[in-house]
Amino acid sequence: MESSTKSALINTFQQQFGDKFTTNLTLRTQHAHTQTWLPNQPADGVLFAENKQMVIDAVNICHEYRCPLIPFGTGSSLEGQVNAPQGGICIDTSRMDQIITIHQDDLAVTLQPGVTREALNTALRHTGLFFPIDPGANASLGGMASTRASGTNAVLYGTMKDVVLNLEVVLADGRLIRTASRAKKSAAGYDLTHLFIGSEGTLGIITELTLKVFARPEQVAGGVCAFPSILDACNAVIMTIQSGIPVSRLELLDPLQIRACNQYSKLAMPEKPTLFVEFHGSATHVKQQAEQFAAIAEEQGAEPFQWSSDESALKQLWKARHNAYFATQLLRPQAQAYVSDACVPISRLAECVEQTRLDLEESQLIATIVGHVGDGNFHVCLMVDPKDAHEIECVEAFLARISERAISMEGTCTGEHGIGQGKQAYLRKELGEAVDVMLSIKQALDPYNLMNPAKIFS
Amino acid sequence: MESSTKSALINTFQQQFGDKFTTNLTLRTQHAHTQTWLPNQPADGVLFAENKQMVIDAVNICHEYRCPLIPFGTGSSLEGQVNAPQGGICIDTSRMDQIITIHQDDLAVTLQPGVTREALNTALRHTGLFFPIDPGANASLGGMASTRASGTNAVLYGTMKDVVLNLEVVLADGRLIRTASRAKKSAAGYDLTHLFIGSEGTLGIITELTLKVFARPEQVAGGVCAFPSILDACNAVIMTIQSGIPVSRLELLDPLQIRACNQYSKLAMPEKPTLFVEFHGSATHVKQQAEQFAAIAEEQGAEPFQWSSDESALKQLWKARHNAYFATQLLRPQAQAYVSDACVPISRLAECVEQTRLDLEESQLIATIVGHVGDGNFHVCLMVDPKDAHEIECVEAFLARISERAISMEGTCTGEHGIGQGKQAYLRKELGEAVDVMLSIKQALDPYNLMNPAKIFS
Repeated sequence: MESSTKSALINTFQQQFGDKFTTNLTLRTQHAHTQTWLPNQPADGVLFAENKQMVIDAVNICHEYRCPLIPFGTGSSLEGQVNAPQGGICIDTSRMDQIITIHQDDLAVTLQPGVTREALNTALRHTGLFFPIDPGANASLGGMASTRASGTNAVLYGTMKDVVLNLEVVLADGRLIRTASRAKKSAAGYDLTHLFIGSEGTLGIITELTLKVFARPEQVAGGVCAFPSILDACNAVIMTIQSGIPVSRLELLDPLQIRACNQYSKLAMPEKPTLFVEFHGSATHVKQQAEQFAAIAEEQGAEPFQWSSDESALKQLWKARHNAYFATQLLRPQAQAYVSDACVPISRLAECVEQTRLDLEESQLIATIVGHVGDGNFHVCLMVDPKDAHEIECVEAFLARISERAISMEGTCTGEHGIGQGKQAYLRKELGEAVDVMLSIKQALDPYNLMNPAKIFS
Repeated sequence: MESSTKSALINTFQQQFGDKFTTNLTLRTQHAHTQTWLPNQPADGVLFAENKQMVIDAVNICHEYRCPLIPFGTGSSLEGQVNAPQGGICIDTSRMDQIITIHQDDLAVTLQPGVTREALNTALRHTGLFFPIDPGANASLGGMASTRASGTNAVLYGTMKDVVLNLEVVLADGRLIRTASRAKKSAAGYDLTHLFIGSEGTLGIITELTLKVFARPEQVAGGVCAFPSILDACNAVIMTIQSGIPVSRLELLDPLQIRACNQYSKLAMPEKPTLFVEFHGSATHVKQQAEQFAAIAEEQGAEPFQWSSDESALKQLWKARHNAYFATQLLRPQAQAYVSDACVPISRLAECVEQTRLDLEESQLIATIVGHVGDGNFHVCLMVDPKDAHEIECVEAFLARISERAISMEGTCTGEHGIGQGKQAYLRKELGEAVDVMLSIKQALDPYNLMNPAKIFS
């Protein structure tokens, strides 16, 4: 955009939105990518949208000026999704934080995109319902839908793709659409809901969501279980899934991650490949699940499975898991974390994780491996010195290899973090000409490439 | 298409495909719509495709001639999806009936589109796995994906949208793409898998699918339960879902349907609103579920819930449910059945079903009501004399009202049968400008409107 046009645009935003709009550099920097060593590329201004009309007005102005728009939730995405490499206006939706209706009888809730998952669960506290998707960060639900987020509970409750009933979206030309009704099932035309889920803001800005919520389980039980090898742990995972045990969480931590967690959370777990497991259901049902899992684990040579339904014991357990990221940082305090993401069919998981561990050793990189292994999804948390060009080079080569390894095993280069800026080359390797179909859709719905440009594809 | 062009096209198909291609009128008629009183509109020729290369070759010829293509599975769709109102070539995929790989450890199967759901379950018989989606008809899995089919098991296992991992599709211009990897989770770009599911063949022809399959439950138990009123039955449904009881089937039959089933299947069920219920799980778990459901039903004034895990008793029960369609036909043997389809949030279900029953009475139409009520989805099975113009008019007015009623209750005009030719006006009423977004996508992927034209939108 020419500088005179940009000035006119900024001026228009200032006149229209007053103090809801800012060009302050600190704020602009905070609204770009801040999570990893990917560069921080701020927008030219940030609009704090308070309602859908403000979003529509902003989109209309940007459409007129042919100016990029970057939707922003809480900024916890990991692949540069909120960067503004071509400048433009960041639309911060965090003030659109109202829960509009709790549809108690329908197990659903309609809300604005800035509501975070923790705020939603707080609002549901007295209803007997809860929202299970938990990507770790207290992300906004608009952002979680945009990036098709998932996390630890996905093995039982699915990912964002499984819990969104409909979306209200502002398109690049300012039109406001609703993608579906509030019915649980629909065969009414193309599935626009799923088209927008995971589109990373490149097709429109979400202004309202209706989400499924779930009956809170009567009881929650869980525990940890150490295995002789990653292969044994993965085999236990496969047998658990295949036996139809409706496990709600099934997380793998490698020995280095266990060491880090022990240090950080002052625990004394054996430094072995370890599964963190959780069950939801009635008291008798969780007991039965836990016993079935214990038998499977024993068959794979695991140490005795210790489990409990005591709330504070469970809290400590999952706190250790959730703090894995911080624990890993302690392994190399001056470094910055970069969390990679791959997902393969579970039959290939052991092989993929073992090859990755070997690769890390050969590359002399410091990294832990944790995984939502019930879904075949795992992360490598690399501790990187961002000032060491040689190390960055090594990390980039490693990241290329992990993506290619996952793809060669019929998996994906990203199970939950998305493509953003970081994984565009791998998307093409994974899906080939299907990417051209995505581009045709992008071109049809956003012909001037205004919606979060240079994300997913450039 | 001009008649000389059409002759040249037919000639090309005959030369290329020999006896795999036919212009026989009987066969062409059988390959168009035969299920309801919608008109039968045959294609100009039928190709029995035996592999993906034949599909690609056929699409390339049609693309060159700008000739419509109509994908065909088993012809069990209910809204005219396989009609050829503009002529063209029907691509019958029923000979593409190979199961390519059973991924036992991954609980998945890769297969060709002509495999039927019953054939798949036969192939899985010795694996401990099964495929749950059951729309009644023994439909092909390609067709079921194309129409986003569901049916009785959807309340626990979801619909086709929940069980397809990826699709291989031939696009209108002959390109072959795969929509996703085989990983259970993915955040890799736009969700093309869900775009093709439910697109009713208007965006491409499915040549391969990878589907989730499930561990066969240790035990299945079920039974029937008669309620004083539809409202009571629906309240029991809501409470069952809200209590988190993982019921696998939850079907409502109205008193007239029960009478018909009694006559047809020689049963003696009380002629009252009745729920057919099924539970999957371990022996203790199904017992617990059945007892929980019995307590809920009792609270709603139901007669005592009789349940069993005896296989032959269950078979008889579900045979009666599956034969509901034929039983209804006995109510008016000379008439033709037309099954409507609506889906609302379950909180509105009782109201919607009761208003619909009243509407039927006022319209003096003979019809039963059955529903996959755990999902808020119900059908009205109308017995219509297709030669009575006045009656057809009444039926059409009734169908308009049921769609509008569902839409006004935040539901959809179709939970599982799709839009086809029959529901295009209601799609627009339901989703407004979102339909223009669908049209933009259609235009982007199929600019000459060759793929199943005049379906979903005209």
